[in-house]
Amino acid sequence: MKECIKVGLLGAGTVGSGVLTVLEENTAEIEKKVGVPIHVSKILVRDMKKAKELSEKYQLTDKIEDIVEDPEIDIVVELIGREHPAKEYIAAALEHKKNVVTANKDVLAKYGKELFPLAEENKVDFMFEASVGGGIPIIRPLKSCLAANKVTSVMGIVNGTTNYMLTKMSQENMDYADVLREAQEKGYAESDPTADVGGLDAARKLVILASIAFNTRIDLSDVLVEGIDGLDLCDIEHGKELGYAIKLLAIAKNNAEHGISVCVRPTMLPVSHPLAGVNDVFNAIFVTGDAIGDAMFMGRGAGKMPTASAVCGDIIDVARNIIHKSNGRINCTCFDEKHLCSLENMMSPCYIRLHVQDKPGVLAAIAAAFGAQNVSLKNVVQKSKVKGVAELVVITYDVSELNLQMAVQTLKALPIVEKVCSVIRVEDHDLE
Amino acid sequence: MKECIKVGLLGAGTVGSGVLTVLEENTAEIEKKVGVPIHVSKILVRDMKKAKELSEKYQLTDKIEDIVEDPEIDIVVELIGREHPAKEYIAAALEHKKNVVTANKDVLAKYGKELFPLAEENKVDFMFEASVGGGIPIIRPLKSCLAANKVTSVMGIVNGTTNYMLTKMSQENMDYADVLREAQEKGYAESDPTADVGGLDAARKLVILASIAFNTRIDLSDVLVEGIDGLDLCDIEHGKELGYAIKLLAIAKNNAEHGISVCVRPTMLPVSHPLAGVNDVFNAIFVTGDAIGDAMFMGRGAGKMPTASAVCGDIIDVARNIIHKSNGRINCTCFDEKHLCSLENMMSPCYIRLHVQDKPGVLAAIAAAFGAQNVSLKNVVQKSKVKGVAELVVITYDVSELNLQMAVQTLKALPIVEKVCSVIRVEDHDLE
Repeated sequence: MKECIKVGLLGAGTVGSGVLTVLEENTAEIEKKVGVPIHVSKILVRDMKKAKELSEKYQLTDKIEDIVEDPEIDIVVELIGREHPAKEYIAAALEHKKNVVTANKDVLAKYGKELFPLAEENKVDFMFEASVGGGIPIIRPLKSCLAANKVTSVMGIVNGTTNYMLTKMSQENMDYADVLREAQEKGYAESDPTADVGGLDAARKLVILASIAFNTRIDLSDVLVEGIDGLDLCDIEHGKELGYAIKLLAIAKNNAEHGISVCVRPTMLPVSHPLAGVNDVFNAIFVTGDAIGDAMFMGRGAGKMPTASAVCGDIIDVARNIIHKSNGRINCTCFDEKHLCSLENMMSPCYIRLHVQDKPGVLAAIAAAFGAQNVSLKNVVQKSKVKGVAELVVITYDVSELNLQMAVQTLKALPIVEKVCSVIRVEDHDLE
Repeated sequence: MKECIKVGLLGAGTVGSGVLTVLEENTAEIEKKVGVPIHVSKILVRDMKKAKELSEKYQLTDKIEDIVEDPEIDIVVELIGREHPAKEYIAAALEHKKNVVTANKDVLAKYGKELFPLAEENKVDFMFEASVGGGIPIIRPLKSCLAANKVTSVMGIVNGTTNYMLTKMSQENMDYADVLREAQEKGYAESDPTADVGGLDAARKLVILASIAFNTRIDLSDVLVEGIDGLDLCDIEHGKELGYAIKLLAIAKNNAEHGISVCVRPTMLPVSHPLAGVNDVFNAIFVTGDAIGDAMFMGRGAGKMPTASAVCGDIIDVARNIIHKSNGRINCTCFDEKHLCSLENMMSPCYIRLHVQDKPGVLAAIAAAFGAQNVSLKNVVQKSKVKGVAELVVITYDVSELNLQMAVQTLKALPIVEKVCSVIRVEDHDLE
């Protein structure tokens, strides 16, 4: 039996220092759970001079070879972030038969298809619980606890920045620009917030979730992405009146007949839906499977300590595998062919807000334009009337993505339509 | 490598038949995930004649020896329920070096301390994800994903029957007796509902959760248990006015200074708390750890298919261990000594409703009685006045269990107090 498990840590930034804190503070419990102690034997830093304080307790290096070529190191923990050189470092570690733990969603979403086979060839573990939902246990539950299910849908609030912004907009009637400024001041949004507000961050996490949930390799290019940039406060208000909350949802569905659809977009959810009550920077993932029905996992989706919690959980799991010589115990499960759902078969209701001329026959013309694309209307409400222009809010029954796009084109071309202001999908889902 | 993993199923009732359904319907995916197929090779039934239909597809027996002594069987799945003979069957299976999967909370809560060491001696897996929260992944997340945390608190809605009843009382203003009758008619409550409404079922699940969360062996006798029997609709209504929902909570806390407290009781939760929105037969477990902060796991806490989902997830996990020869990979983690918190140190705010004589000086006398036990009052509201008797609702600041009990005794002895109608604990908890 090994006397101790040795970890090489790549990056000692926010999450890296959180990992060091967790391993230091809970040393005794972790040793009891694993059977032997876990030691961080080397840390890769960018600038040795800047990391002086760290060097009093840990051995530092600025060369990746010092870690991946060290025969004593059992687990390489990658917490550098971004695509490069993180991807190359992970690949080098796997090639040197090191078990790897990472929190890097960017690398997983783009290079997962290269890295998972590499881990398998080298019979090592490659774990990434922290890459989606920060501290929330979701990867392991999907891979183990729900492994007997056919998962039919995964819907997640997986970006804390945008959930904080939407919560503020909804609760304090702040508009988009103001709330973005406040989020940046509080450090919840980056100075360039594009990846968050544009939906790319959520899309990367969705790629990881959907690949596991549906046992196939989903690519970033498969995801229809729409962000919250440009979301109008009045749609949040109208939504409230109709009993909906707007959340930026990452949605993956697997329809037995029509295949897989993956999208990130602002979505109206009934206020009674468990995801509708998930506010501020909290994340949550709502999973539906053929046996379990509905289940939800909620917690902090980011931050130093919650993310460190997930990383250290992975380290402990790898360590248990090392002790029991069972590394590679849970392989990549992307064994199925990918069948993507066509736009014709992606169905859901929709909320549409538009400005039309306020004159007789307008409603009939609008209804006819929807009808021509087979879109049935559930609800039409006139919200206001200013200088001959009326604001209409329309809720449709289930409509395919294709028909919806065509209906919107038709509406835009109508002389009586001044503007199609917003098109927001609705997820009506009775709890199963 | 083994060609196939063989399961011996004890009991083919509701959950047992759900397990057969899941294993049949998802055979292909499960085989891909495990590497080899999983077969149910024998089923123990009580009455061979009654199980005729089953005998067309499976080999049946009414003798436990046929299963535990069968050298081909790798995993024994116990789904008989209740304490006996389930406990003896599980022990026999472990002694015959069979891995065991069970959903049996009664056996675990009472005989866990005998059975876990037996599993360890025999180097086999003993898994029980389905014993708490039905389909909700909570045991494995606690044992693996959150393994690096010091868990400070676990609060759960772990009994679907009572949560359904409380939801009905709250949403439809039905009183306790009516809602119990309706729950019995719908099959949500048993004809003898004592274990559910009295809190025993929740207490058993809490014993399992707290033992894992705090790495020590909690006993059923450690739990302070109070059920919802006798809960008055008017307390639910007063709670609502004060911004609280009443839930039957199973609460385990580990205070670094004062030790562990475990209790099951109707509890007032701020409506903004994630557990307050968990309604009907849904269950949820809210965990707080030093690294992760707050996290919540929600889903169906009972029922044929959700429970089968958890059982089959365990079967798959055991099968992966068999393939990798790593059974016993995650041992019992009750390695710490148990330090229970004294009543003096169990603190929380409290809601108290009482009937008092409506005359001058009464409020001062009540306040003095509380004050004598060091109970500070946050809020006193007079709700109504009928024939010289006033109804008062008092919300206290943090008060210890001991001081509260003494204050209630003092109040009862006051001539101006007609009746102390209800004493309900409040959990005020800002999300971490």
